[in-house]
Amino acid sequence: MTKTPDAARRSDRSRRAILDAALALVGEVGYNKLTIEAIAARAGVGKQTIYRWWPSKAAVLLDASLALAGEAETEGQWTGFPDTGDLAADLKHVLRATVDELCDEKYEAPARALTAAGATDPELGARFNERLLEPQLALYEARLRTARQAGQLAPDTDLRLTVEMLLGPLTYRWLLRTQPLTHAFADALVDRVLGGVAKVTVP
Amino acid sequence: MTKTPDAARRSDRSRRAILDAALALVGEVGYNKLTIEAIAARAGVGKQTIYRWWPSKAAVLLDASLALAGEAETEGQWTGFPDTGDLAADLKHVLRATVDELCDEKYEAPARALTAAGATDPELGARFNERLLEPQLALYEARLRTARQAGQLAPDTDLRLTVEMLLGPLTYRWLLRTQPLTHAFADALVDRVLGGVAKVTVP
Repeated sequence: MTKTPDAARRSDRSRRAILDAALALVGEVGYNKLTIEAIAARAGVGKQTIYRWWPSKAAVLLDASLALAGEAETEGQWTGFPDTGDLAADLKHVLRATVDELCDEKYEAPARALTAAGATDPELGARFNERLLEPQLALYEARLRTARQAGQLAPDTDLRLTVEMLLGPLTYRWLLRTQPLTHAFADALVDRVLGGVAKVTVP
Repeated sequence: MTKTPDAARRSDRSRRAILDAALALVGEVGYNKLTIEAIAARAGVGKQTIYRWWPSKAAVLLDASLALAGEAETEGQWTGFPDTGDLAADLKHVLRATVDELCDEKYEAPARALTAAGATDPELGARFNERLLEPQLALYEARLRTARQAGQLAPDTDLRLTVEMLLGPLTYRWLLRTQPLTHAFADALVDRVLGGVAKVTVP
């Protein structure tokens, strides 16, 4: 049976309500205490509606996170990895946007809850890495590869290590709240990852 | 009333049993589901014995983590931050030991559970940072300060940023399990933090 336009609209609305409810709730109660029942109640749908589309709360949250990441794109916070030819400027642009996103209250609580859940649940962590994290890391790697090809990076640069040198300190400061997460921090990090901290002796 | 030697020994044994039970349990069930009752049962003591010494499960776990860190020292995994004059070698030595510790099953599950709990509970996170994390970061900063004074680092090097450039990627890879956490990774990280990834043009 083909859906009527009205039914399709209702379906989209329910789907959206479920994803929103899942994100809000995981930020409020954490991953462990989240239930399909609570998501259904918050979204104003029956439990069976959720189970028709998703087999588990992990699956709901994965789609919710993907939708949230997609929204950030649409809102112009992310319009593809820039390539102006100036690697430092491009990395600063993206890391500043990441700082803004991590500090955005809509994003922060669910992102913390899911990171914490993945850290203690290897299977969940692996699913999130595969669907959500690795595609993002691949965009950084592609930009760094172009820079390496253009002779801007040492020819033996380990691209994956470089990506983790950028995202590792950012994630560390965000997750552990050791110091304020600012644009100035993002800028300094990019400069030091590219240039190093050791004194270069000019002969 | 002064304790007799026997009473003091019993006291020490109970204390040790409680801290061990707390670490084992938090690794098994996570921070949220951990209770003083469960710790008491596992340690074979009464609840009141725990409450005599600690006001909350967070306080028990903080002392348990400090005791675990102290043990690692005693076992020679950590004998103070080395200063051989060779900064790269000293940093690699410490980061390799940190890799070993993070991959040690005795340490890994409780450390993950507590990091996850601190990430979603700002008050708990702040207490752990103050008592456990910041004293460790201060040791890195002190070693880097000596290197800066010796002219081995750029004079304007931000010591705190440099510490987070070392520990951030390590913690990221450990917590998110993006790639294997190895000594080779620790070595490459130290080399790149010191030297940067940008191509240095020799005129």
